[in-house]
Amino acid sequence: MKLASDYKLGIIGGGQLARMSAYQAYRYGIQVGAITSASGNDPMEQVTPHIFRGGVSDFDTLKKLADWADVVTLENEFLDGEVLQQIQEQTGTPIYPTPASFKKIENKRIEKDTFRNAGIPVARYMVIQEPDDLSKAGAKFGWPYILKSSKGGYDGYGNASVSSAEEAAKAFSKLGGTAGKEIIAEERVDFVKELAVITARNKFGMVTYPCVETIQENHICKTVIAPARIPKALREQACELARAATEAINGIGLFAFEFFLTEDNQILLNESAPRPHNSGHYTIEGCKVSQFENHVRTVTGLPPAPAPMLAPAAVMINLLGKVTGKAVLQLNGDIRDYEHAHVHVYGKSDSRKGRKMGHITLTGQNQEELLEKAAYLEQQIIL
Amino acid sequence: MKLASDYKLGIIGGGQLARMSAYQAYRYGIQVGAITSASGNDPMEQVTPHIFRGGVSDFDTLKKLADWADVVTLENEFLDGEVLQQIQEQTGTPIYPTPASFKKIENKRIEKDTFRNAGIPVARYMVIQEPDDLSKAGAKFGWPYILKSSKGGYDGYGNASVSSAEEAAKAFSKLGGTAGKEIIAEERVDFVKELAVITARNKFGMVTYPCVETIQENHICKTVIAPARIPKALREQACELARAATEAINGIGLFAFEFFLTEDNQILLNESAPRPHNSGHYTIEGCKVSQFENHVRTVTGLPPAPAPMLAPAAVMINLLGKVTGKAVLQLNGDIRDYEHAHVHVYGKSDSRKGRKMGHITLTGQNQEELLEKAAYLEQQIIL
Repeated sequence: MKLASDYKLGIIGGGQLARMSAYQAYRYGIQVGAITSASGNDPMEQVTPHIFRGGVSDFDTLKKLADWADVVTLENEFLDGEVLQQIQEQTGTPIYPTPASFKKIENKRIEKDTFRNAGIPVARYMVIQEPDDLSKAGAKFGWPYILKSSKGGYDGYGNASVSSAEEAAKAFSKLGGTAGKEIIAEERVDFVKELAVITARNKFGMVTYPCVETIQENHICKTVIAPARIPKALREQACELARAATEAINGIGLFAFEFFLTEDNQILLNESAPRPHNSGHYTIEGCKVSQFENHVRTVTGLPPAPAPMLAPAAVMINLLGKVTGKAVLQLNGDIRDYEHAHVHVYGKSDSRKGRKMGHITLTGQNQEELLEKAAYLEQQIIL
Repeated sequence: MKLASDYKLGIIGGGQLARMSAYQAYRYGIQVGAITSASGNDPMEQVTPHIFRGGVSDFDTLKKLADWADVVTLENEFLDGEVLQQIQEQTGTPIYPTPASFKKIENKRIEKDTFRNAGIPVARYMVIQEPDDLSKAGAKFGWPYILKSSKGGYDGYGNASVSSAEEAAKAFSKLGGTAGKEIIAEERVDFVKELAVITARNKFGMVTYPCVETIQENHICKTVIAPARIPKALREQACELARAATEAINGIGLFAFEFFLTEDNQILLNESAPRPHNSGHYTIEGCKVSQFENHVRTVTGLPPAPAPMLAPAAVMINLLGKVTGKAVLQLNGDIRDYEHAHVHVYGKSDSRKGRKMGHITLTGQNQEELLEKAAYLEQQIIL
C-alpha cells in the first residue's frame, strides 16, 4: 500500500459530510478537492485551497475535479449514475462508490427493486404510471400511504403522506408527477423505531458499525442513540441486512442503511445512502474509527478498520438552526455544563430555522443520562 | 460564549502542529490562517485557503495574519516576545499565549530564571559571558556538561555535550558564542527517564494531561508511552510541577513541560514549550479531548475540557523520514497488521532522513504489547 504526498481525493459536494471526511483525509496527508456551489459559502470553502465551484450538476466542473483527483467520491446522491460513469471513463479517475453501484440505488424505485430482488425486506411499493394508479395504490396499501418522488428527496422533501384520492392527486402534482417525474407509492409502515447501520467495504472486506436508533423531528434526523435500545438479536439482524444490502450493490466505500422496526419485530430496509450519514456522526468520538475515516480508507484503498464503540453508550443531537441570519454559535448557560459534550460546527456562514448547522455527541455509560444531558445542552445552544 | 461563523484563528507557523490544531478549529467552525515559508510546501498549505507566506520572522507577514485574525496563537517558539507584543499592540488582535508569558520563557536562560525563581527544580546552569567561563562551568558542574544556545535550538540542534576545555571552546564557537549569541552551560543530569506533561489553561481554569514517558533517539523524540512507567506519586509530582510552571508564566493556552527523572527520584524541569507538543500526539486517540482541541479551546476563550485517557495505555511512535526525496507513505507487510494503529501523516511534500513526517498511535490495555506492535509497524512503514 503506497500513498504519495500529492495523492488527491476529490469529493463531489462541499457540505458538512465532505468537510468531516476531509479532516480524516488530511490525517493521512491526502489532499482534498471539493465541488461547491456558486455561493462560495459551502462548508468546504474554508478548509481547502482546492475548490471547484459550479455545483454537483455541472458536467464540466465534475470533470475538472476528476482530472485533478486520483480518486473521486461522493457526499450526496443527487447525481446521475450515467454521468458518473462518463466522468470516470473520460478522465480515467476511479469513482468510489462505483458508478455501477450507484446505478443500483440511484433512485427510490431502482433502489427498492435492487434490495427486494436481493431478498431484503422492504415496504410494499408501486410506481405511479398515471393518476388512476393513485387510487389503486390506496386500494392496495390502504390509506394513508406515502408518495415519493424517485429522485432528489431528502429530510422529508419529496415525500408526502396522503389520506385520500384528493390528497393523493394534489401531492402527485406537487411532487412533479404531472410534469413527468417518476413517483412511487409506498405502503405506510407503522414502525415503532427507526434504525440505522453503516458499513464500510472494499476488496479487503467489510466493517459494520453498531445498529443505532434514530429519532426524526419534522422528517429531519434529530437524535441518534447508540446502540439502539432494542434486543441484541434485532440489532444483529439489522447489521446482517446492511451487510447483505452492501453486497447486493457490490459496494466499495461507505454506506448507510435506514430501517423501520415494526411492532412485530420485522425489520424493513427504508433507504440507503452511498456516503457518510447523519446517523454515523456519533462514531467520531463514539467508535475507535469514525465513519469518516473509514470512508477515506475504503475509497483510497486501505482496508476498513474495525470500529468498536469506545464506551457503552453514545448520543448525538443535531444542532438545527434556531435563527435566520449570520451563523453565531452561542453556548448559553453555565459553560461548565458543556465539558463532556463534543461540539461540532460545520462552518456554514448563515443559519436558518431547521438547517443542519452542527451536532453534539456525548459518550458514557448510561444512555438515558446522556440523552437528558444532550437534550439540555441542545436547548442551551443557539446557532 | 459566542463564536461567529467568520471567527478566525491565526497560527504563527505552518507545520504539523498548526495543521493538527487546525483540524480541531475546523470542528468548531473556526477559520484558520497560517504563516508558511516561501517554499509553498508547509503542511498547512494543503488544508486552508488562508495562507500568509513569508515566514515567522517577517514582521509584515505577522502583522497581516494578525490583521486578518480574531485571535493569534503559536506553533513554535522561534519568535521574539517584543515583536509579538508590538504585533498585538499595532493590530489590537490578542495573541495567546500572551507576549508577556512568552517573554518569561523566550530563551533558555530567561526560562530557567523564571522557573527557578518560582521554586521549580531545574538543573544548575550559568551564562557563558566569555570563553574563560567555559572552564569555570567545568569546575562547577564537572565534565561533561551541556552547552546550549539560549535561542533557536530544537531536536538537539543548538546543544552540545562537552567533555573538555578544548571541546567546550569548539562548541562555544560552533553554537555562535564567539559571534555574540548567548550561550548557557548546564549541568549534565544523569536521568533515568524523560517525562512530559501538558497543561491547558485560561481564565476558566487548568486541565493537566497525564505524565508520559518520552524516549529520544539522536535527540529527537521517537516514542511516547502514556502514562509514564513510574510510580503514580512521581507522575503526580510531575503534573504538579507542570501546573506550577504554567502558573509561574500566567499561561493562557497550551503548554508542554519536559522533565528529567533522576535515579534518586528527583524531577527537574528541563524545557517548556508554549504550544502543542510531540509528547502530546497520543492524546488525539488516547484522551477524551486532544491537546490540539484544548489548544483551540483555551486560545479562543472556551474552558479547557477534562481529558482523561480513554484506555489504560497509549503508545506513540514518530515516523521519521527514512528516505530522501518525494514523500510516499508505504505501509509494507500485511496491511491487516495496521488495523489497530492510528496513522497520521503531516502532508510534507518531501521526506529526508530523520524528518518528522508523521506518527502512529496505538491504544489498549498493555503498554508492553502496544510498544512491541508499534515498533514492528514503525519498521514496516517507509515514509
